[in-house]
Amino acid sequence: MNEDTVAELWTVAHKLAEAARVETLARFRTSGLSIDNKRPQDFDPVTEADRASERAMREVLRELRPDDGILGEEEAEHFGTSGLTWVLDPIDGTRGYMSGTPTWGVLIALSDAAGVKLGIIDQPYIGERFFGGLGQAGFTGPHGARDLAVRGTKTLADAVVFSTFPEVGTKAEAEGFHAVAGKCKLTRYGTDCYAYGLLALGQIDLVIEAGLEPYDICGPIGVVEAGGGILTDWQGRPAHGGGRCIAAATPEIHAQALEILSQIPEA
Amino acid sequence: MNEDTVAELWTVAHKLAEAARVETLARFRTSGLSIDNKRPQDFDPVTEADRASERAMREVLRELRPDDGILGEEEAEHFGTSGLTWVLDPIDGTRGYMSGTPTWGVLIALSDAAGVKLGIIDQPYIGERFFGGLGQAGFTGPHGARDLAVRGTKTLADAVVFSTFPEVGTKAEAEGFHAVAGKCKLTRYGTDCYAYGLLALGQIDLVIEAGLEPYDICGPIGVVEAGGGILTDWQGRPAHGGGRCIAAATPEIHAQALEILSQIPEA
Repeated sequence: MNEDTVAELWTVAHKLAEAARVETLARFRTSGLSIDNKRPQDFDPVTEADRASERAMREVLRELRPDDGILGEEEAEHFGTSGLTWVLDPIDGTRGYMSGTPTWGVLIALSDAAGVKLGIIDQPYIGERFFGGLGQAGFTGPHGARDLAVRGTKTLADAVVFSTFPEVGTKAEAEGFHAVAGKCKLTRYGTDCYAYGLLALGQIDLVIEAGLEPYDICGPIGVVEAGGGILTDWQGRPAHGGGRCIAAATPEIHAQALEILSQIPEA
Repeated sequence: MNEDTVAELWTVAHKLAEAARVETLARFRTSGLSIDNKRPQDFDPVTEADRASERAMREVLRELRPDDGILGEEEAEHFGTSGLTWVLDPIDGTRGYMSGTPTWGVLIALSDAAGVKLGIIDQPYIGERFFGGLGQAGFTGPHGARDLAVRGTKTLADAVVFSTFPEVGTKAEAEGFHAVAGKCKLTRYGTDCYAYGLLALGQIDLVIEAGLEPYDICGPIGVVEAGGGILTDWQGRPAHGGGRCIAAATPEIHAQALEILSQIPEA
């Protein structure tokens, strides 16, 4: 991939984040959000904000990258001809978004057959963007910019671990998570994609989740790997397909966590 | 209390938030935070940021309100002669602060013998301030200002409930919390004081915690009550002494939650 193409792809990626930002911010913390329920049995709200955010990103791609594929949460997959696919989560953390917390995000990734080429985690309300891949590893926020770089924690006993909620996934998955978390210094919940950004920024050491979709994890893969971290499934395999995922700051704590997580039988 | 006094007290309260903001922001997401451990057995970190933040606030009070008392987390209580006491938590959510999450806060309250007169929850990184009491009920943030106002949720089945971590407190307290949360629409964790701000802003309906100190809850009392919410202990009594606390958007869900929580035997 030549330099011009890389520059163009990054320009498009940031334009996608800007387009989504307008739609998500316009509806954040407003009353009267129209909430449908895709899966009534477990409260999976889809707001108009999700749909408008994805629609806005698809419009950008239709204009600027019509030959690329699009895999998004809210609309049917669009199959491209370029060999490149944009993987979009218009709002990761819809429950957090609806509750007014500031740790939901817009996830953008570009993939080819080999895996994720670049990823963005954007937090429009705070005004933070984590972005990495194709030679970039950056963060911009309300108090300035810095490079992404994980920290060097070497043992679980010194590690801070995050997951979105304590139930994690299935009963077995929860047991796996809590077996790892029980060896860590500190466990925190409630962050959705934001935790992957914190890991890439060197603030925390592990993020462990289960039941993810590809669009939940491709953006984080780009960000975490650019920061020098590792993001795999619970067997140490590529995680771009979703499912059970673990992000680790170092190979050492990745291996220590996998020793436990890899024992959890596949559902 | 006359108008001039009220205006002066609010000016001082905001100056305290500004003083703390400088110290907490200067150290947020920096590496090399010096972390002591007050209670090694359960990881209660106290950073230099906590101490510097409280020191800065005490200096403001020494200059502007020397006759008022000060009850703060980090230093010994200062007994005043005015009948008014400033209750300060220099960083509520130190674990979140150390992890780089943006939902910790600086808590400021002014109390007299009758209870909390005003409260502030300040989030320096995002640039948000929730403030209420003595005729005020406001919020300022990166995208503008608005009034505090709780929403009108009437049943637990429609309620969104927050707590800082799923263990909540003692085993009995955790059981009480989860008995209430099990009847709610959505449970989220990880927010510390920020959840009380979201409740006062009409975003969520319940916050339930235990094991609090007076400086953890006096700021939130001012904010929640100014927004039209209710903040008591699990028996429905005043909560400014800390311990087991519940904030509710409406009397209806407060009563429904207390029906369960009031059954939990006192430790």
